[in-house]
Amino acid sequence: MRTMSTTFDGVVLIAHGARDERWMVPFHRMRAELEKKLAPARVALSFLDFAPPKFADAVAEVCAAGARRVLVAPVFLSGGGHVAKDVPELVAPERARYPHVTFTVAGAIGEEPEVASAMAAAVVRLAGC
Amino acid sequence: MRTMSTTFDGVVLIAHGARDERWMVPFHRMRAELEKKLAPARVALSFLDFAPPKFADAVAEVCAAGARRVLVAPVFLSGGGHVAKDVPELVAPERARYPHVTFTVAGAIGEEPEVASAMAAAVVRLAGC
Repeated sequence: MRTMSTTFDGVVLIAHGARDERWMVPFHRMRAELEKKLAPARVALSFLDFAPPKFADAVAEVCAAGARRVLVAPVFLSGGGHVAKDVPELVAPERARYPHVTFTVAGAIGEEPEVASAMAAAVVRLAGC
Repeated sequence: MRTMSTTFDGVVLIAHGARDERWMVPFHRMRAELEKKLAPARVALSFLDFAPPKFADAVAEVCAAGARRVLVAPVFLSGGGHVAKDVPELVAPERARYPHVTFTVAGAIGEEPEVASAMAAAVVRLAGC
């Protein structure tokens, strides 16, 4: 049974970012796909570094659209490094800035079971076995 | 129909690497799973930076095990940045070092269709929609 307490009305994706503009393309594609699938929830994209938007701007976007239960989804391959250290440091000031909004931080998307399985399946397919 | 020309007998995964040792854990898990699924092909793991093994050492491992058709699979979320620039620079000297081995470089695993779909599906699931 789906309850309001488990349904988010805003999603903020956060990815690493890179100097190469081509790097950001699949993340913008993912955001656009998710916005369709999760409508009417607003889905915003942000990068840790190198490319806009910043995390705080993405949070401002979903909050301005009325989100009160925000899922922060780190689009990283591993929960170590940036996801363990930098993401919580970015979320803390947003919790203070928007005290009426709840922020829930997911783990690294790459470690979700369906993603880990899909990566292995893709390599098996590419290897022709 | 599967032909020898499309079947690899060695796979070298290459990921970014990070200072946080926890970061490397899911990649080692992926390698172990793939080694079971792709046996008797040898599957080796390497990192661009921060953690061993180096790419050249992973190539040496699969070649020493007898691989002659090696798939290089970049475990990155995007084909921009490192996959576009650094991976080809690492592969070139290995082609010279092992002239009897063919090296085929895949695209970034995160842009393979089943992986991109699984990432979107994981966010939809986590968002409770």
